[in-house]
Amino acid sequence: MKKIAVFPGSFDPFTNGHYDIVSRGLSIFDEIIVAIGHNSDKKRYFDIQATLPKIKSLFFDKPQVSVQLYNELTSEFARKNEAKYLLRGLRNTTDFEYENAIAQVNKQLNPNLETVFLITTPQFATISSSIVRELHKFGADVSSYVPNTI
Amino acid sequence: MKKIAVFPGSFDPFTNGHYDIVSRGLSIFDEIIVAIGHNSDKKRYFDIQATLPKIKSLFFDKPQVSVQLYNELTSEFARKNEAKYLLRGLRNTTDFEYENAIAQVNKQLNPNLETVFLITTPQFATISSSIVRELHKFGADVSSYVPNTI
Amino acid sequence: MKKIAVFPGSFDPFTNGHYDIVSRGLSIFDEIIVAIGHNSDKKRYFDIQATLPKIKSLFFDKPQVSVQLYNELTSEFARKNEAKYLLRGLRNTTDFEYENAIAQVNKQLNPNLETVFLITTPQFATISSSIVRELHKFGADVSSYVPNTI
Amino acid sequence: MKKIAVFPGSFDPFTNGHYDIVSRGLSIFDEIIVAIGHNSDKKRYFDIQATLPKIKSLFFDKPQVSVQLYNELTSEFARKNEAKYLLRGLRNTTDFEYENAIAQVNKQLNPNLETVFLITTPQFATISSSIVRELHKFGADVSSYVPNTI
Amino acid sequence: MKKIAVFPGSFDPFTNGHYDIVSRGLSIFDEIIVAIGHNSDKKRYFDIQATLPKIKSLFFDKPQVSVQLYNELTSEFARKNEAKYLLRGLRNTTDFEYENAIAQVNKQLNPNLETVFLITTPQFATISSSIVRELHKFGADVSSYVPNTI
Amino acid sequence: MKKIAVFPGSFDPFTNGHYDIVSRGLSIFDEIIVAIGHNSDKKRYFDIQATLPKIKSLFFDKPQVSVQLYNELTSEFARKNEAKYLLRGLRNTTDFEYENAIAQVNKQLNPNLETVFLITTPQFATISSSIVRELHKFGADVSSYVPNTI
Repeated sequence: MKKIAVFPGSFDPFTNGHYDIVSRGLSIFDEIIVAIGHNSDKKRYFDIQATLPKIKSLFFDKPQVSVQLYNELTSEFARKNEAKYLLRGLRNTTDFEYENAIAQVNKQLNPNLETVFLITTPQFATISSSIVRELHKFGADVSSYVPNTI
Repeated sequence: MKKIAVFPGSFDPFTNGHYDIVSRGLSIFDEIIVAIGHNSDKKRYFDIQATLPKIKSLFFDKPQVSVQLYNELTSEFARKNEAKYLLRGLRNTTDFEYENAIAQVNKQLNPNLETVFLITTPQFATISSSIVRELHKFGADVSSYVPNTI
Repeated sequence: MKKIAVFPGSFDPFTNGHYDIVSRGLSIFDEIIVAIGHNSDKKRYFDIQATLPKIKSLFFDKPQVSVQLYNELTSEFARKNEAKYLLRGLRNTTDFEYENAIAQVNKQLNPNLETVFLITTPQFATISSSIVRELHKFGADVSSYVPNTI
Repeated sequence: MKKIAVFPGSFDPFTNGHYDIVSRGLSIFDEIIVAIGHNSDKKRYFDIQATLPKIKSLFFDKPQVSVQLYNELTSEFARKNEAKYLLRGLRNTTDFEYENAIAQVNKQLNPNLETVFLITTPQFATISSSIVRELHKFGADVSSYVPNTI
Repeated sequence: MKKIAVFPGSFDPFTNGHYDIVSRGLSIFDEIIVAIGHNSDKKRYFDIQATLPKIKSLFFDKPQVSVQLYNELTSEFARKNEAKYLLRGLRNTTDFEYENAIAQVNKQLNPNLETVFLITTPQFATISSSIVRELHKFGADVSSYVPNTI
Repeated sequence: MKKIAVFPGSFDPFTNGHYDIVSRGLSIFDEIIVAIGHNSDKKRYFDIQATLPKIKSLFFDKPQVSVQLYNELTSEFARKNEAKYLLRGLRNTTDFEYENAIAQVNKQLNPNLETVFLITTPQFATISSSIVRELHKFGADVSSYVPNTI
């Protein structure tokens, strides 16, 4: 049976830190679904119509990675996609406390769902989507934080 | 190719928290090697001659789990056993900071070695081997912290 | 002289974690006032008109617990109610840093006001009002996180 | 029924931070037992024969505070002394993680035992017994860290 | 060559904690520019027209300290002002994780820019601009948190 | 007046992380004294007779850096050397809590002594002397963690 993991996030934008986690996750899982949480009511900084194909293009040569939008509970999305794992990156202790809460809830909602964590590679650990947005807003070059041109 | 993970520790003693991580790890990996770091110079509280068979007996019906002593770098032990993963539990932020350092070093020593983390189930997250030793020393009943009688 | 504690929060909604703290607080204090911070300008997810009677009903057989709305500084509300203690739960290190700041300020505003902390029981420590709101928004069953039907 | 709390520690030495917690604890509890964990096998820096009367002398005018040596599990000591509370100070997040583990274990050993926390007053929050010992070893004046001359 | 540091923030309001860092920073740097991040789109609680002269008046007798508004990347503002240092205060571990991320990004944007940290003096470490705003909103006396009347 | 900083530690061994902090500190201070805390009673892993010249050789072309052994309080050593600053690196939140305590004590012992912090460059942030010792004990190649052959 295939081991399918969901890598959920808002990816506004998808950073080198996210790319690092998916790439390393491929050594563990047979398939990874990059799941972009998207709600038309919630404003994004980078347009979802542009974000989706850009993330797809990053993995064009990795058929094990697919990219989907979703707008429901992550545990429900995983169940529908027969994914028994959530893949998450941990950058620091603030991430840890937040992820701990989310992982326990997801397990309660769906007892077959295991959240698997990788610690972000140090050189990417200080990147966050919110910092990239802030830099971009001020016109800075963000090419060293994201895997392709935004 | 089989996915083999090493679950390293001193396990002095092996607690319900350790058991939780190995059990859950079996949904991710094909084989798990419980690797007891043991150095004859370093004193243990619980005798290694008793600890080894006890841990083995816990998994007697799980042929995917083996138990070994080792006395070398964990990354080297993993390499010899063709394990490409280390499995570790995270209980809290103190664990996180320590495990982060160890994981980066293990990856540098052996770039094919990925450390995979599960967050300990809350009811086990406040158990540690050192607390169990302290309780045992004072004659307390530790049966609710360890999976079999010490 | 009676020992009266205020247990302040927005309780949007009141979770099992909150219930745990009040219940345990009753072994310390003679009376506990559950104080719902409410400002008509600030939107709540769960209606205040429904929240208030629901929290009251939880403690209908505990005359030592009362429930009030308030819209002023917590230290001032405590003073008016002759409460010399604030009761707070700590779930993790993120809570700790926040509560530390608030507790020092409350003591400076009202030197007779002591903030007393209990650490949340592990099984409730990963529940937060914001996670419950998120689950509810997506139609999930939240009955295992809150002490009565929302 | 009297509310009796145990304030356990090794108090090697008893610092201004410890004094702060006991003093503030007196507004919550009817009696506080300062319980000096002492094991004749374990070396102390400051002699136990000197430490005990010094701590007693600090509270000579507070009959609600007693000072005892103990050498057993804290939960057992509390039970024998009919104390239903442990009183502990929290200085920072490192303390929090440690105290969380200890508090859960104490509650499991003795379900009637509630651990009550106060956050250390900021000016005392960076004092620890180990720093005081280090200063004393080098001959520094430690009088601003401890409530009476060592 | 003069050592010029930028002390960036929104300073809404400028607290005793901020004042502590600038004052101590003067022993390290030849000049400090207090740089008020200000964007006319973003609402402040305290009016910028009042905040700017108030901060200036605090340092009227310290010609090494200047106060400026800015609305660009901090690293860019530093470059234009020939400042090779950013000065920041650290109050607690939450600050640390945030500041770590920002400092790495600033260094990547401007490799000559070094972020220098001082740990806030304990008595000021629990003050934050957001707590002062909350107190002020409820009409509390905030004079012990800010260096001059708001 | 020259700005002299002491960079204290046991440096058993001196790692790339330490080297990073001293190198960056040279942009802030006129002179840096690498101060090796050494007590003949306390066993080191790497011999002090070899460590001292090795650290010196690292800075042979930087006359602003000197290396000394010391065996007294750091604040006292700084005073004797007319150093008004201590330079310290911060790797993570565990470091932060420890360094906060030490810095406050040093300031109380010597009010003119300011502790200045740099956050360790991410790629070095997971290196510690204790990990290097552990690796070396098992015969691993540690050349990527230390600036010269041990």
